[in-house]
Amino acid sequence: MRKYVVGVDYGTLSGRALLADARTGEELASSVYEYPHAVMDKTLPDGTPLGTDWALQDPQDYLDVLGHAVPEVLRKSSVSPKDVIGIGTDFTACTVLPVKADGTPLCFLPQFRSRPHAYVKLWKHHAAQDQANRLNAIAAERGEKWLNNYGGKISSEWAVPKIWQIAEEDPEIYDSMDRFIEAADWIVWQLCGKEVRNSCTAGYKEMWNKKTGFPSDDFFRALDPKLEHVVDEKFSRRITPLGRKAGEITPEAARLTGLLPGTAVSVGNVDAHVCIPAVGIDGPGKMLAIMGTSTCHIMMGTQEHQVPGMCGVVEDGVLPGYFGYEAGQSCVGDHFAWFIDNCLPASYYEQAQKEKKNIHQFLREKAQTQKPGESGLLALDWWNGNRSVLVDVDLSGMMLGMTLQTKPEEIYRALIEATAYGTRMIIENYREHNVPVDEFYASGGISQKDPMTMQIYADVINMPVKIAGTAQGPALGSAIFASVAAGKAAGGYDSIFEAARAMGKVKDVVYRPIPENAKTYDQLFAEYRTLHDYFGRGANDVMKRLKKMKMNILSSYKK
Amino acid sequence: MRKYVVGVDYGTLSGRALLADARTGEELASSVYEYPHAVMDKTLPDGTPLGTDWALQDPQDYLDVLGHAVPEVLRKSSVSPKDVIGIGTDFTACTVLPVKADGTPLCFLPQFRSRPHAYVKLWKHHAAQDQANRLNAIAAERGEKWLNNYGGKISSEWAVPKIWQIAEEDPEIYDSMDRFIEAADWIVWQLCGKEVRNSCTAGYKEMWNKKTGFPSDDFFRALDPKLEHVVDEKFSRRITPLGRKAGEITPEAARLTGLLPGTAVSVGNVDAHVCIPAVGIDGPGKMLAIMGTSTCHIMMGTQEHQVPGMCGVVEDGVLPGYFGYEAGQSCVGDHFAWFIDNCLPASYYEQAQKEKKNIHQFLREKAQTQKPGESGLLALDWWNGNRSVLVDVDLSGMMLGMTLQTKPEEIYRALIEATAYGTRMIIENYREHNVPVDEFYASGGISQKDPMTMQIYADVINMPVKIAGTAQGPALGSAIFASVAAGKAAGGYDSIFEAARAMGKVKDVVYRPIPENAKTYDQLFAEYRTLHDYFGRGANDVMKRLKKMKMNILSSYKK
Repeated sequence: MRKYVVGVDYGTLSGRALLADARTGEELASSVYEYPHAVMDKTLPDGTPLGTDWALQDPQDYLDVLGHAVPEVLRKSSVSPKDVIGIGTDFTACTVLPVKADGTPLCFLPQFRSRPHAYVKLWKHHAAQDQANRLNAIAAERGEKWLNNYGGKISSEWAVPKIWQIAEEDPEIYDSMDRFIEAADWIVWQLCGKEVRNSCTAGYKEMWNKKTGFPSDDFFRALDPKLEHVVDEKFSRRITPLGRKAGEITPEAARLTGLLPGTAVSVGNVDAHVCIPAVGIDGPGKMLAIMGTSTCHIMMGTQEHQVPGMCGVVEDGVLPGYFGYEAGQSCVGDHFAWFIDNCLPASYYEQAQKEKKNIHQFLREKAQTQKPGESGLLALDWWNGNRSVLVDVDLSGMMLGMTLQTKPEEIYRALIEATAYGTRMIIENYREHNVPVDEFYASGGISQKDPMTMQIYADVINMPVKIAGTAQGPALGSAIFASVAAGKAAGGYDSIFEAARAMGKVKDVVYRPIPENAKTYDQLFAEYRTLHDYFGRGANDVMKRLKKMKMNILSSYKK
Repeated sequence: MRKYVVGVDYGTLSGRALLADARTGEELASSVYEYPHAVMDKTLPDGTPLGTDWALQDPQDYLDVLGHAVPEVLRKSSVSPKDVIGIGTDFTACTVLPVKADGTPLCFLPQFRSRPHAYVKLWKHHAAQDQANRLNAIAAERGEKWLNNYGGKISSEWAVPKIWQIAEEDPEIYDSMDRFIEAADWIVWQLCGKEVRNSCTAGYKEMWNKKTGFPSDDFFRALDPKLEHVVDEKFSRRITPLGRKAGEITPEAARLTGLLPGTAVSVGNVDAHVCIPAVGIDGPGKMLAIMGTSTCHIMMGTQEHQVPGMCGVVEDGVLPGYFGYEAGQSCVGDHFAWFIDNCLPASYYEQAQKEKKNIHQFLREKAQTQKPGESGLLALDWWNGNRSVLVDVDLSGMMLGMTLQTKPEEIYRALIEATAYGTRMIIENYREHNVPVDEFYASGGISQKDPMTMQIYADVINMPVKIAGTAQGPALGSAIFASVAAGKAAGGYDSIFEAARAMGKVKDVVYRPIPENAKTYDQLFAEYRTLHDYFGRGANDVMKRLKKMKMNILSSYKK
């Protein structure tokens, strides 16, 4: 008798449910539900205006995903709910909301419907930058050791700057909330009726450490006396490792989803990290690059090393028993899209239309015949700053080598190569800090659709690139965790490692480095690295000075 | 009784005649004649193939300009030939041809019609690069002092590399020529029946110096024993200063042009240098930038200083009695055209078409509202290498500061600003080597059509920019020299200085630096200079290494 699991992946604009075979990972049906409120970055639904860099969501949309997409996969697959043994979820992070003691979001309460701070702060809500800057300064001044676990700097996207912003800007909301919780954990609460906080978001986004816990109350008091007991008052010190069962579907959740009460619910997870088992990774040294508008690099190690420029190292942060390492590139697909929108000449559009080709496809056909080094171009991939390994949003893009003969497809390829050099930089940085990187996997849209880019990556990093066997990595990863939450007796697995090996998959095609290309890219990467360090490590801070000048001019307009 | 002069400007693709008032410079009529053979860079008319980087012309086209455009201006203006007191000419340089002792081009002889080396080598014939490289190496090794008069390097465009190429590749042509002569001097020969060689091309393109003459026969022997007596055998040691009368129209030239026999003919000149009197410049420290696809900077000084990176310093090279200094930027209008052709998105084309605007005009309207520094962009204007002050064709373009918000009009403006920084670099380089630059004039297409660019130049160099009062600078300059060749008694002038003041003109509009912008551009130029030196003076030769890599790959295709 076959058993099934459901994985639900909560993205930035929609949620996706996937129904998979609980033993093999075979994908039977999937369904996408777009959030009716999408991202609120200008106003609330009632017209209340939001500030610059705000990004909110309405948690009702998350419930609606459960109410639409989950029943839909049951219908599509004709699988009986009694054969579904578990459900797992993953979420964008740090996406957080203030709730009452029973889990009710503050924004559901009539008195707070018009209060921006009552809503979900999406990961890309950047309006707490001021709080993040002050937090970093105070932490550095106090010599807080945990800071080194996050490459020396925490981001305005994380939970503490976000709650601090609430405390400063809308104290009534701060006082009214009983919990401040990751959407990843809130959705699990809605499914199983219990607050269960996962080790991944706690570690990567809330500065929690398995051995040392949270930063001290003393530190939080130094930020703001009001925050002194924030961990106990608004967060929680009970953190549950990934791979555990959080609970079982409540009758209410059963009515919403069509699943049976008692169905196992796994601990919440993050959309990037949950992809690791989906490609079958079950141990250390295997880097997974999730390549989309930006790239996230997830890997496990057997030891805790403090590697400058990474986003974080968290014990149990990816799979239990290992140290999870995260790094990132802030501009990958966005980079190529910028080029298409801003730099591609009319003649190319027309030709692509005439040939009925997608413009990326058209450009790739022109770019893929170029040999490495043939264009003479070299770029730094910092159009959106540098996340790893420099952690510097004030850096900007650079390209050199242009001549009057330079063609658009050469610039396009140079931008792709630049992101590959950025990935190699991250790999070499790990190795230089004693964290081995032995294998490389890619998932996400680019890995599925763009063979030229994947070959360039293989040639640049000089390692074979294995490709995710699913286009729905996060949803499959969540389904795999669901299978473990259900357990072997029910038809799933008792170990996430076992489940990953059985249910995770890569494609048959592996991009292998072409030795001649790898040799040329070694030379080009050496040039990239020299420029990376020249512009990125203080020898010439021209990018920062230009940005400051620009910001001064732009702010003078506002006055 | 009004008297008139004719100026004829020989460009790369056409010749232009202008008829002007001999006292006031008022322009009465002009006529353009396009060369039927244009530039021959693939084959001769009979199909004989040419090599890479060749660029030839047929001198019959030059005669046809005299036969068509000169009669045309007489017709158009209804001026009687008896009231035309002189004719002056200017030419691209170094544009050279092998001729017999009577001036007959070798390519006019039936036995040489299919021999590429019998034709005119146009200024942009770059196939003698190998000879130029060897010449520079030998000159440097021998410590030839004259090399410093040319910024330390001579170009493959100049006369000696070109004749050396003939000697090596087609000895029969070399042996058959009695003279190797600039087209600037050949056309004067056709007009007045005498070989008169001008000091401008001799100085700038043939390594002649008023005080020391040509390089020694010993040097030429070191190049190639065959060249030992090249100066006496093929060139000439009789050099005539600019501003003199070369002779008078012969009966044969009279039949061709419609002018009367006996009309004064001025000494030949170069298209850039001849523009100086056309804007009324009559003394030292006044720089004229002739801005087109590339920019040429002409200026006079009272002393001979060896300034690194300039194209040359030549006594009597611009106006008699002064040292003429020439510098250049190899990529100005070409730079903006490259951007339009290769980087401008379809949406901009469509919008410009909808608004019925020239695309440059459309972009300018978007770019001119930007404040200096607002884009955060900075570029090095080396898309076609760097002529002055680095004299390095292996350098390439660079731009930095790009973000995902960067717009096409910001890139466009950054390219314009980069060329302005390049001009400021040239000015500062002169000043640092004790050659004063006190005033700045601009002529050429960009100066006439592009107010935004001219304001940027004024702001960047922090000097007022005066604009040529004519769109036909070279032809008017030639007409002014014609007026001096005719002399005061005939209705012209006895001195070129007097003629320049009377006949040269600038527009009423002067672009004056805006102090606030100048201050910002001081900061941006400091950043430009740091990067200029970093990439251009050996700290990081990445551009050269990339170019070498590219060249190796391209040449591997040919094998």
